[in-house]
Amino acid sequence: MNSADMLVSNGIVLTLDNENSQIKNGSVAIKKDKIVAVGNADEFSGWEVSRIINAHGCIIMPGLVNAHTHAAMICFRGLADDLPLMTWLNDFIFPAEAKLDEEKVYRATLLACAEMIMSGTTCFCDMYLFEDAVARAAKRSGMRAVVGEVLYDFPSPNYGPIEQGFTYSKMLIEKWQNDPLIKIAIEPHSPYLCSPDLLKKAFSITQANNILLVIHVSETESEVNNIKDKYGLTPIGHLADLGVLAPNLLACHCVILTDKDISLLHHHDVKVAHNPESNMKLASGIAPIPRLLEEGICVGLGTDGCASNNNLDLFQEMDTAAKLHKVNTFDPTVIDSATALRMCTIEAARALGLGETTGSLEVGKKADIIVLDTKKPHLTPMYNPTSHLVYSARGSDVKTTIINGEVVMEDGRLLSLDLEKTMDDVRKIAESIRTC
Amino acid sequence: MNSADMLVSNGIVLTLDNENSQIKNGSVAIKKDKIVAVGNADEFSGWEVSRIINAHGCIIMPGLVNAHTHAAMICFRGLADDLPLMTWLNDFIFPAEAKLDEEKVYRATLLACAEMIMSGTTCFCDMYLFEDAVARAAKRSGMRAVVGEVLYDFPSPNYGPIEQGFTYSKMLIEKWQNDPLIKIAIEPHSPYLCSPDLLKKAFSITQANNILLVIHVSETESEVNNIKDKYGLTPIGHLADLGVLAPNLLACHCVILTDKDISLLHHHDVKVAHNPESNMKLASGIAPIPRLLEEGICVGLGTDGCASNNNLDLFQEMDTAAKLHKVNTFDPTVIDSATALRMCTIEAARALGLGETTGSLEVGKKADIIVLDTKKPHLTPMYNPTSHLVYSARGSDVKTTIINGEVVMEDGRLLSLDLEKTMDDVRKIAESIRTC
Repeated sequence: MNSADMLVSNGIVLTLDNENSQIKNGSVAIKKDKIVAVGNADEFSGWEVSRIINAHGCIIMPGLVNAHTHAAMICFRGLADDLPLMTWLNDFIFPAEAKLDEEKVYRATLLACAEMIMSGTTCFCDMYLFEDAVARAAKRSGMRAVVGEVLYDFPSPNYGPIEQGFTYSKMLIEKWQNDPLIKIAIEPHSPYLCSPDLLKKAFSITQANNILLVIHVSETESEVNNIKDKYGLTPIGHLADLGVLAPNLLACHCVILTDKDISLLHHHDVKVAHNPESNMKLASGIAPIPRLLEEGICVGLGTDGCASNNNLDLFQEMDTAAKLHKVNTFDPTVIDSATALRMCTIEAARALGLGETTGSLEVGKKADIIVLDTKKPHLTPMYNPTSHLVYSARGSDVKTTIINGEVVMEDGRLLSLDLEKTMDDVRKIAESIRTC
Repeated sequence: MNSADMLVSNGIVLTLDNENSQIKNGSVAIKKDKIVAVGNADEFSGWEVSRIINAHGCIIMPGLVNAHTHAAMICFRGLADDLPLMTWLNDFIFPAEAKLDEEKVYRATLLACAEMIMSGTTCFCDMYLFEDAVARAAKRSGMRAVVGEVLYDFPSPNYGPIEQGFTYSKMLIEKWQNDPLIKIAIEPHSPYLCSPDLLKKAFSITQANNILLVIHVSETESEVNNIKDKYGLTPIGHLADLGVLAPNLLACHCVILTDKDISLLHHHDVKVAHNPESNMKLASGIAPIPRLLEEGICVGLGTDGCASNNNLDLFQEMDTAAKLHKVNTFDPTVIDSATALRMCTIEAARALGLGETTGSLEVGKKADIIVLDTKKPHLTPMYNPTSHLVYSARGSDVKTTIINGEVVMEDGRLLSLDLEKTMDDVRKIAESIRTC
């Protein structure tokens, strides 16, 4: 007899497989950490099942994947808004960041994980300081994560000089190499804060360890001008020149791109993380995402940090992405709802090198699954579940979140963390920042 | 001894008065339908109060005002997306609208009211067919509304030829003239669907009755070209030429404006309804809102109908408005959070001619009040309540909604309607539309 540890049953199943297959009344069977079957609900009638999650009237879909964030920046949420970029950075963010330490990053990341789990995100890619704390917080919360310590030319509050940044990153690789949830990446900040040597060394470590390389690139006009002045090339051209464009590179932002940049990204199969809300809020510009998709470039959506968004709700991010590119191109057909949804699930997973692990409901993949309650006024009536997920739903419609086969939220109740304590810890951090 | 029927107590009070006054631990006292006091919580210690709504850890603020929607279009939510405008209209929306009748509009509007109340909207301005049904549904739900039958040159499924449209509108004015919640407006669709005679007659009725005139105008490039071809003027210029620009005109959309248009709007004190999400989704363009605000023009935010948004959540609309204009002007300081919040409260109320009635928490105003729960991960920590309302909150954070002194939602439970039945009725309407 067929058996499963858990059956998420009787919902509308959106698989996000290659055909975007949907099942009107379907179920997903889980054994340990893996999906073992996806099909019509009635196919499971004879199964021996230890636990049933009833998803009647709900949507069952892969957990969302946040392709770019700085989770611990949650403790700066709303600290400073509506300011010129340099005032925001120099007068608020940098002084506040100087007050952080490993413990604060751990506590802040726990809150970010709580927010993500409760709004349907099951995996995120993080760049920040004290990333061992980020990895520990993600694991403690039960979240899947790709984490990497930010590297730059000047001394870091965590590791000091850059040589020790590489030592620290290698420690992370070693420490977390067999973890089922955590993957380590190497994350040089940007071409404007990293020397060519730093970038080349970072790249070579990723090649040797077969891991992701993550960088901010071409985020603003002033960055592009800066790199052109320094190297006579666009930031993407500069990275190409250094030989670091490759399929394992996740290029975050890519707001300002030339045709040649786009063809370089395509040629080297570079992955792109698109953060529309952050780019809008900081007035950086609008990335040419419809062009990138036409070229077949893999694009995942990210929220960026909470200081420039100011939340981690990927449902809102999908909605914004779908609408922003329509008005920007005067074409209501671009970034349709199916495309936006893929950018937050399977495409984001692929962008993080986790395309075989998560991002869709397919047999053999890890059981990263969310259940959304659609019996709500703002999701009624329902002609098309995909449209609702992108244009009508909110993170708060997520009812149940399963990561790696573990139920981390059920019926809106977070199970993996003490939510009150998690919030309270960050309120205390905020007090110390407010009075600095 | 001072007394009140209700005290909303011990929260962070955002008054949205002229100074955007905030009270860190404040209360709002209500007698019958009116606000009788706003102050520090301890000022109310000796009061005799019939009912207390405890807002500890919450934000107390005016209910949001939706300056432009077509509430009954909720039954087309997600029916058709990501399509060229004319395909969307001709192949989906118009055939679906042909299936509507007074009863369906009533049922659909009830659902829209449920969605609005549950996401913190206490007042809306509606343009659609069968507006007597809309008025009845708003009143049944306990919502404040400005409603007006859409008028155009061709026969309407409701009233037939345009002469009867005016008769119907006058009936509405008479029927609802003494209602505490409902105000009637005259609502010619647009300069491209309404003859100069229709527009002038509509205007004269509003002047005679001292009521609002509502119109779609300058929404798309093709509309502007159409009016230029026909009249040799921009749509705003054409309205000026007809003598219908006035302080009681609510001009919805205003996406495509010339400098001269802007100065005409300013000169005549015309009010503007801005619907950024709809304009984005339909790829119409980006209205020059920062320019309008610089000129001192009153701008209220609206969601437009659910077929082009696809929800009625004004929190999301504020967020989008604040971010969209930043990226569009490459200036992160425009539409700051305080401005965005005013556009959804007091400025929207002013745009509807209800600036003395609702939109702020001030003594003498009607008690239209919402309470938001901030004890949630995505609203933690909190440095600045206004920032959170615009950039972090969602409609689902609204806990309690009071309209005209009546509690219509408490602790997330809708009190004025049977929510299950309301959703079910619209599911049935959707079935009849789907199979058409």
